[in-house]
Amino acid sequence: MRICLAQLNYHIGNFENNFQKMLEAIETAKSQHADIVVFGELALTGYPPRDFLEFEDFIHRSDEYIQHLLSYTHELAVVIGAPSVNPVPEGKDLYNSAYFLYEGSIQYVQHKTLLPTYDIFDEYRYFEPNTEFGIVEFKGKKIALTVCEDIWNIGNENPLYVTCPLDEMMPFKPDFILNVSASPFDHKHAAERLAIVSENAKRYNLPVFYVNHIGAQTEVIFDGGSVVSSPNGSIFKEMVYFEEAIETFELDEVVAGTQNIEQTKDKIALIHDAIILGIKDYFNKLGFTKAILGLSGGIDSAVTCALAARALGGENVTGMLMPSQFSSGHSVDDARELAENLAMPYHIVTIKELYDAFENKLQPMFKDLPFNVTEENIQARCRGVLLMAMSNKFGNILLNTSNKSEMAVGYGTLYGDLCGGLSVLGDVYKMDVFALARYINKDGEVIPINSIEKPPSAELRPNQKDSDSLPDYEVLDEILKLYIEDHKGPKEIIALGHDSALVQRILRLVNINEFKRYQTAPALRVSNKAFGMGRRMPIVGKYLS
Amino acid sequence: MRICLAQLNYHIGNFENNFQKMLEAIETAKSQHADIVVFGELALTGYPPRDFLEFEDFIHRSDEYIQHLLSYTHELAVVIGAPSVNPVPEGKDLYNSAYFLYEGSIQYVQHKTLLPTYDIFDEYRYFEPNTEFGIVEFKGKKIALTVCEDIWNIGNENPLYVTCPLDEMMPFKPDFILNVSASPFDHKHAAERLAIVSENAKRYNLPVFYVNHIGAQTEVIFDGGSVVSSPNGSIFKEMVYFEEAIETFELDEVVAGTQNIEQTKDKIALIHDAIILGIKDYFNKLGFTKAILGLSGGIDSAVTCALAARALGGENVTGMLMPSQFSSGHSVDDARELAENLAMPYHIVTIKELYDAFENKLQPMFKDLPFNVTEENIQARCRGVLLMAMSNKFGNILLNTSNKSEMAVGYGTLYGDLCGGLSVLGDVYKMDVFALARYINKDGEVIPINSIEKPPSAELRPNQKDSDSLPDYEVLDEILKLYIEDHKGPKEIIALGHDSALVQRILRLVNINEFKRYQTAPALRVSNKAFGMGRRMPIVGKYLS
Repeated sequence: MRICLAQLNYHIGNFENNFQKMLEAIETAKSQHADIVVFGELALTGYPPRDFLEFEDFIHRSDEYIQHLLSYTHELAVVIGAPSVNPVPEGKDLYNSAYFLYEGSIQYVQHKTLLPTYDIFDEYRYFEPNTEFGIVEFKGKKIALTVCEDIWNIGNENPLYVTCPLDEMMPFKPDFILNVSASPFDHKHAAERLAIVSENAKRYNLPVFYVNHIGAQTEVIFDGGSVVSSPNGSIFKEMVYFEEAIETFELDEVVAGTQNIEQTKDKIALIHDAIILGIKDYFNKLGFTKAILGLSGGIDSAVTCALAARALGGENVTGMLMPSQFSSGHSVDDARELAENLAMPYHIVTIKELYDAFENKLQPMFKDLPFNVTEENIQARCRGVLLMAMSNKFGNILLNTSNKSEMAVGYGTLYGDLCGGLSVLGDVYKMDVFALARYINKDGEVIPINSIEKPPSAELRPNQKDSDSLPDYEVLDEILKLYIEDHKGPKEIIALGHDSALVQRILRLVNINEFKRYQTAPALRVSNKAFGMGRRMPIVGKYLS
Repeated sequence: MRICLAQLNYHIGNFENNFQKMLEAIETAKSQHADIVVFGELALTGYPPRDFLEFEDFIHRSDEYIQHLLSYTHELAVVIGAPSVNPVPEGKDLYNSAYFLYEGSIQYVQHKTLLPTYDIFDEYRYFEPNTEFGIVEFKGKKIALTVCEDIWNIGNENPLYVTCPLDEMMPFKPDFILNVSASPFDHKHAAERLAIVSENAKRYNLPVFYVNHIGAQTEVIFDGGSVVSSPNGSIFKEMVYFEEAIETFELDEVVAGTQNIEQTKDKIALIHDAIILGIKDYFNKLGFTKAILGLSGGIDSAVTCALAARALGGENVTGMLMPSQFSSGHSVDDARELAENLAMPYHIVTIKELYDAFENKLQPMFKDLPFNVTEENIQARCRGVLLMAMSNKFGNILLNTSNKSEMAVGYGTLYGDLCGGLSVLGDVYKMDVFALARYINKDGEVIPINSIEKPPSAELRPNQKDSDSLPDYEVLDEILKLYIEDHKGPKEIIALGHDSALVQRILRLVNINEFKRYQTAPALRVSNKAFGMGRRMPIVGKYLS
């Protein structure tokens, strides 16, 4: 038996687009002599469809496309994830299901049992958990059909669920396991995914075929990396990351374990590739081709710009160099050098006259109150107005250039440098921004060395340095990671050797700046705990603040 | 037996504050000769604590305060909602529990069974659903202890859950039902709450004591309205809305049904009172006293301003009148009249020079491209910069003045009039803004009649009217409500008699403007479907768009 995994880039709600991609994949699968072609979880709707699932009209469209697909299932079986309607009134109205289509009819539907409801996942918001288990019989083989999370509840010290779906399916004596997934990227995820697929194979002594999505849906990035494991847990094939791929496997060869092909996993390279895909898909799926961003000469805007240029082409990224009276001479030089390295258009617009016009207008109220953060913010906001005007006039999307360390402590101006439709580095800590810059330069200087090596500064007052108000980024990033990713409390972080007053100050800054993050663009998610939908905090909360 | 319901205004994460309030309530309950005092659901942490619940440190603090409370339980029993740790590794780590404290020890803990995971609710994100049922025995009475949603799964045609907790408790033959709730306001909710409490009383022929929170936590407003029902379903007492209250009831009197006291329910009055509480608590809980906002002379800013003045005092609300070259003469007059009616400070700052400065700077790029939405947005953003500068310099919070109809169709400028820390009217449709204006004026003119009666206009280009780009608000609001609140699809809305092209245009506008709402301030929630946490939509989704 030949099983084809179709790792495709779907578009949420765009049924016709997703359907056409499937038809092409079915043709490819046929040319590869496949008996079954397998698409991902909720592939017809795209993942995550969020509250579109609450519209009957939306579900009805999904059902219609399942019907359309049936006429393409006479030569091979199609396994596809889509919502299905719960036939009883009790419980949620939908299941998250895997359909087995063959010979023009729905031969079997297996609902998802384990509904991830944590981080960015809200599945119990929409779906009733499955409680009934069965098996698909096809051409003399028995197939255990599972949906994403259903294979993840093994080997955990502190499991999230009380059932293990494959344990329930084993009495039916399956010959192999199919898993349709929509499992988003983070820089540790590919390794975890391989491990869990391998563990399942070993636990049940069965081959596992796991198919994932690729492509970004706003901030959520799917890296693909679909996996086939032999029964002994050896990885027969880990498919490519960040690209569509359609590949057919001979069951007997997988059982025999005749090969072992895995992808390389370098944290910074993965983040680099993920962000490029994230930018590309944000623009493609919204129907835009051009970006604009402010170039300060600093490392964050330089890295954002280089990534955008790789995603969209340098000619499609416009840089705005907007020095103020506090900008150092080299800032414009560094930014200009970057733009020239990337062969991208740029404009230089000084903001002193705009700033002066605001100060002049505000003089009757401000009188002789001293220069403070207000004036720093006015400069950042003048730039925001210029960037948004360019975006509006020329139909570009403005990219936000803030990094995760800044976002965490609120070191940024709302409606100023926090403007933008998409935050490119909002899930990348500053130290990783440095690493990304070096990685981007690995085959030659793209980002000017000076942008990497000079001390970070917002340049909003004379001789300002980030280090005036923040600790060294090595220390800051470590404390932030302990708090944000690892959920450590202040006592635990201090016990690890960090300065008590500093820890309390940093955690307080994180918590009191929730209001800023609430109004900031979605940030491409590359860690297992990004700001945004995956981290939900009360703005008026008073905890560690 | 005497049962005291303590309807209090908690603050998320502020354990010490919440604890002190409880101690005061315990004193009051004692003075009322209560045997039991009942606080709300997750009262110690405040509701909703969101991802604070994922921090062990946070749970540990909650546990500590439960311990502190025990020493105050020698004279009366305390029923309180708080998280409790799931002792087994399988499943979520926490339960959402009701504790029964008496004589210095935890006598009983009943976990919540039905975990709302829809709209703004994310309970299954944190909590394991209860599966074990019991009863509290206290002074010869048996008490069925339930948490909020646990009493809501009766009489529904399409129930969300497969179990009914009180059905499971009835074999223990309880004498009465206690329910600790955190059930947020919407303008229809008080009536639904009375009905469900009454239905439970009748179904089990038992008295029901239901206690709610009051107060706002960012956008979520709790109205109180705690309820005591006699066994025949007659409402013995519906407690006050939007105020703290501590009231003790004699069980025998409730059983006898000797009184029937309900609050009046007028939609616009409820929304008015809810928003005032919402503003008040947003400022109080963040430690601010002063607000600022732009006054255009139009109805949205006028209503926002009047509500803010009622919440904070007119002297604490500063109005900024910022006419452009396209503002009509009466705009400034109307805004000034409003400010004078409210005895509030205001400033007039013209923006033409700021606008000209930007156009001048942009001229080398814009060349002779025609005036379009770019220039409209520049004006709105100049105002945004001025308002934020005032907010930064004087430590005010900027109020956003956009209404729900505008927010829905994207009729507003990101980083311009969409600036602000809190959206006051973001869940109020335009027609209800008119109704609120008339309600505010019921005892004399606060909002100038001209602001109510003139045709709405953004005044960002010559002779602009809202009706140039939008249908009449009567029609717009009805279509929006069918789509947003009722989840109707285009076919259903058209079948109700609305113009097909118009419906498709409006639904498309709603969906393509998700990116704006993503970056807008939290909006005080007064309907059962507000923008924000309760409505989660994919930005890059392509559905009806």
